[in-house]
Amino acid sequence: MKPAIVTLGSHSALQIAKGAHDEGLHSIVVATPKQKSVYERFPFIDELIVIDNFADFPSLTDQLKKKHAIVIPHGSFVAYLGMEENLEMQLDYFGSKQVIVWEFDRLMQRKWIEEAGILVPKRFKVGEPIDRTVIVKTYGAAGGSGYFLARTQKDLEKNAVKIQNKEYLMQEYIIGVPMYVHYFYSPLTEKLEIMSIDRRYETNADGLGRLPIQHQDGVTEPSYTVVGNSSLVVRESLLVQFYDMGQKAVDYSKKHISKKGLFGPFCLEMVIDEQQRCFVIEISARIVAGTNLFIKGSPYSDLLYDEPMSTGRRIAREIRTAAEQKELHKVLHED
Amino acid sequence: MKPAIVTLGSHSALQIAKGAHDEGLHSIVVATPKQKSVYERFPFIDELIVIDNFADFPSLTDQLKKKHAIVIPHGSFVAYLGMEENLEMQLDYFGSKQVIVWEFDRLMQRKWIEEAGILVPKRFKVGEPIDRTVIVKTYGAAGGSGYFLARTQKDLEKNAVKIQNKEYLMQEYIIGVPMYVHYFYSPLTEKLEIMSIDRRYETNADGLGRLPIQHQDGVTEPSYTVVGNSSLVVRESLLVQFYDMGQKAVDYSKKHISKKGLFGPFCLEMVIDEQQRCFVIEISARIVAGTNLFIKGSPYSDLLYDEPMSTGRRIAREIRTAAEQKELHKVLHED
Amino acid sequence: MKPAIVTLGSHSALQIAKGAHDEGLHSIVVATPKQKSVYERFPFIDELIVIDNFADFPSLTDQLKKKHAIVIPHGSFVAYLGMEENLEMQLDYFGSKQVIVWEFDRLMQRKWIEEAGILVPKRFKVGEPIDRTVIVKTYGAAGGSGYFLARTQKDLEKNAVKIQNKEYLMQEYIIGVPMYVHYFYSPLTEKLEIMSIDRRYETNADGLGRLPIQHQDGVTEPSYTVVGNSSLVVRESLLVQFYDMGQKAVDYSKKHISKKGLFGPFCLEMVIDEQQRCFVIEISARIVAGTNLFIKGSPYSDLLYDEPMSTGRRIAREIRTAAEQKELHKVLHED
Repeated sequence: MKPAIVTLGSHSALQIAKGAHDEGLHSIVVATPKQKSVYERFPFIDELIVIDNFADFPSLTDQLKKKHAIVIPHGSFVAYLGMEENLEMQLDYFGSKQVIVWEFDRLMQRKWIEEAGILVPKRFKVGEPIDRTVIVKTYGAAGGSGYFLARTQKDLEKNAVKIQNKEYLMQEYIIGVPMYVHYFYSPLTEKLEIMSIDRRYETNADGLGRLPIQHQDGVTEPSYTVVGNSSLVVRESLLVQFYDMGQKAVDYSKKHISKKGLFGPFCLEMVIDEQQRCFVIEISARIVAGTNLFIKGSPYSDLLYDEPMSTGRRIAREIRTAAEQKELHKVLHED
Repeated sequence: MKPAIVTLGSHSALQIAKGAHDEGLHSIVVATPKQKSVYERFPFIDELIVIDNFADFPSLTDQLKKKHAIVIPHGSFVAYLGMEENLEMQLDYFGSKQVIVWEFDRLMQRKWIEEAGILVPKRFKVGEPIDRTVIVKTYGAAGGSGYFLARTQKDLEKNAVKIQNKEYLMQEYIIGVPMYVHYFYSPLTEKLEIMSIDRRYETNADGLGRLPIQHQDGVTEPSYTVVGNSSLVVRESLLVQFYDMGQKAVDYSKKHISKKGLFGPFCLEMVIDEQQRCFVIEISARIVAGTNLFIKGSPYSDLLYDEPMSTGRRIAREIRTAAEQKELHKVLHED
Repeated sequence: MKPAIVTLGSHSALQIAKGAHDEGLHSIVVATPKQKSVYERFPFIDELIVIDNFADFPSLTDQLKKKHAIVIPHGSFVAYLGMEENLEMQLDYFGSKQVIVWEFDRLMQRKWIEEAGILVPKRFKVGEPIDRTVIVKTYGAAGGSGYFLARTQKDLEKNAVKIQNKEYLMQEYIIGVPMYVHYFYSPLTEKLEIMSIDRRYETNADGLGRLPIQHQDGVTEPSYTVVGNSSLVVRESLLVQFYDMGQKAVDYSKKHISKKGLFGPFCLEMVIDEQQRCFVIEISARIVAGTNLFIKGSPYSDLLYDEPMSTGRRIAREIRTAAEQKELHKVLHED
């Protein structure tokens, strides 16, 4: 029987479903009535299941189990289903669920990156006086909204209302340029692959620079709501560091997070400063939306594969190969 | 007899001609002596006709009629031939000419978008006091030059000379990021397709942000002359809105503009603010230059087609299919 | 015997090696122990030679001569080996070495561009009073670090320490947008090809615009360290100028620099202002890293070739074709 995959109709579902279909897997997308009109356009979605709310996803468990469908998580899973439902999901699951707990908690995420030996921006504790520009992020802030910058103690006070009664993280704002590096770690080959790189397209941060100073008066704070992505390549000499950082994140997770650790697709968000130091700001322990750029492959996957290889297809390739080698357990979550 | 297409050597002619050639149509490009040196480099241009001025294009009518050439309009047609000549052209024409009249007149264009139920920035009437940053555009301003920003009544007065004796439109300047969404509506299948997305590369607006404030003194106003384009993908959850907006523009045009309405390629220029609201700034009722990025397809056409599908090739595919189905009239202008 | 190519493991080595391998040449990469971990991942590198320091490259001369390896120079050659070693290298060399002497010396480079009839920014001589924003570049500054901007005589004085005892060039800072146009000139066909266009991703210049003014206080000068690249297309009507400028650079080099002049890949760095004037800031007389975006081709190479054609592969194609036609001498340096 052909293995099946299932994902929620959002985030990177088109890429995931197309990748699965192209690899000969049965692709299932679960969409809400609102999103149905988009997903029904694409014949590579072998099966489209419409439910009223994503929160009803658990009600499909039996139906999906019968199809031996493997869940492919993406960035909307925690947002739509909640952490608990993700952890308790009774379906086969591509990836380690333990890593999303670490990813979700900003302090544990920070611990992961820092203790793995990856460069991070200086962190300021609550109440600690700041001596440089900092960015303040409330926990669980989605897609970059709810962040703000502060250069002085006074700036912090002015914005106090935004963090009142909230947990938040305050760290050095690195003056530099952002890069999102998309990795894939294969539990079958035990090899790390850089699949692609993007930068986010953020509103209004990426519109600000187009406004001359005299028109910026009304803009007190930039916002970082991600509405799109564009493609990048990195200076070739930085690839050593990029591979090194990705490997460190994987190695740490295997020792400290779970036996299988972080595998499949993940992303390190970096800011590179003028000394070419790569500060990691965040880790995403699953496929990120920036990979949607590369339906037919990226400059990096083109170096690794002689065929178009999106991250979505890479996931399906791993599942197909595992199934063929009778090692499916290697690519599924285990407690 | 193989259908032929003809276009002016400018804007997106390379893409259009290559697309036609790849679909087995006979591709004709009409160029001026100055541009000849570029167009003669490409063997996919089956026939290159050189004329002294684009304004002499009508003199080719008989010659082109004998070849049953279908005109593929692009953004330079009105600029080079004038509106009247476009409307009176005696050649077969891919698209509805009525829509370019609506496109050309800023007030009618605004009516089209607004009455179609698409979100637009607040408009200020001439003389109406402004209470936020506005952008002022004189009618027929080409490629973004001749725009300016104003935050106060005083700013407006300072720039009064720029709009003196000119018709202009004044609307809210949305703080956000721009996106150009490329659509194709097929009169044969009656389906709307999102082909690709780009952002423009504008001088000097896209250079400003690279200048620190102390060096921006000399720059009083940004300019928006388009000199290039780069590729984007959008957050997948916004695709529902994007399809919805495109469909509304098509539906309205069929009811209010002409029987066939808007078909073939078109583009909605949007600015997306931090609440992810998509404000439509402009509609282009024909192929836009941003599609030149996607000679071998885009992330979006790659989801729709298993072969490289540029917008230029999509046009040719529509013509070829119509010809094969003996329904060419469906894709040609009629009065 | 299959021709071989060799390059240093840095800059654009992956692209060059893959291109060579895909064209059936034997690809050799010379890497340091630090970079080895990256280059050994790619099977298209037919042979990986590890040396302690790039400066030891000359010690490989006999070994490489036996393989008839042709050196493919890139942007790191002068940086790692020094100019003298580049000039005295006893291996076959793809390109004219004389052009790198002209490229390296800012005054000779300026002479080349200006006397070729290409538009350049106004230059200010040492001591000459400035009347507009200027950019000051010390000679040999690598990758954009060590540049600064000045608008007034006072700005210059403030930064005097940066240029003390150094040679530097001071020229008008063009307010506009940068574009890097990648050319390939074939000595076999005597034709110029535009292969692709990129813009650089510079830290911190490309991060500045994302910071609102009140947070830019700490940033006194932008820096231009190149850490990545992204893809662009240009307004089609500018292609005439682009071809014209490239041809002028080639023609001049044949008359004034060496008999064969500039051939193979090269790049013109331009800034385009709001009047669409293209000012050339720099010429790179070899492959540039921006071409790394186009492993599977660019919108421009897709117009020229029906197969994926990176600049790296284009180089290999030229060598292979020359070898087949027994005209290898045409693509190699001669004194």
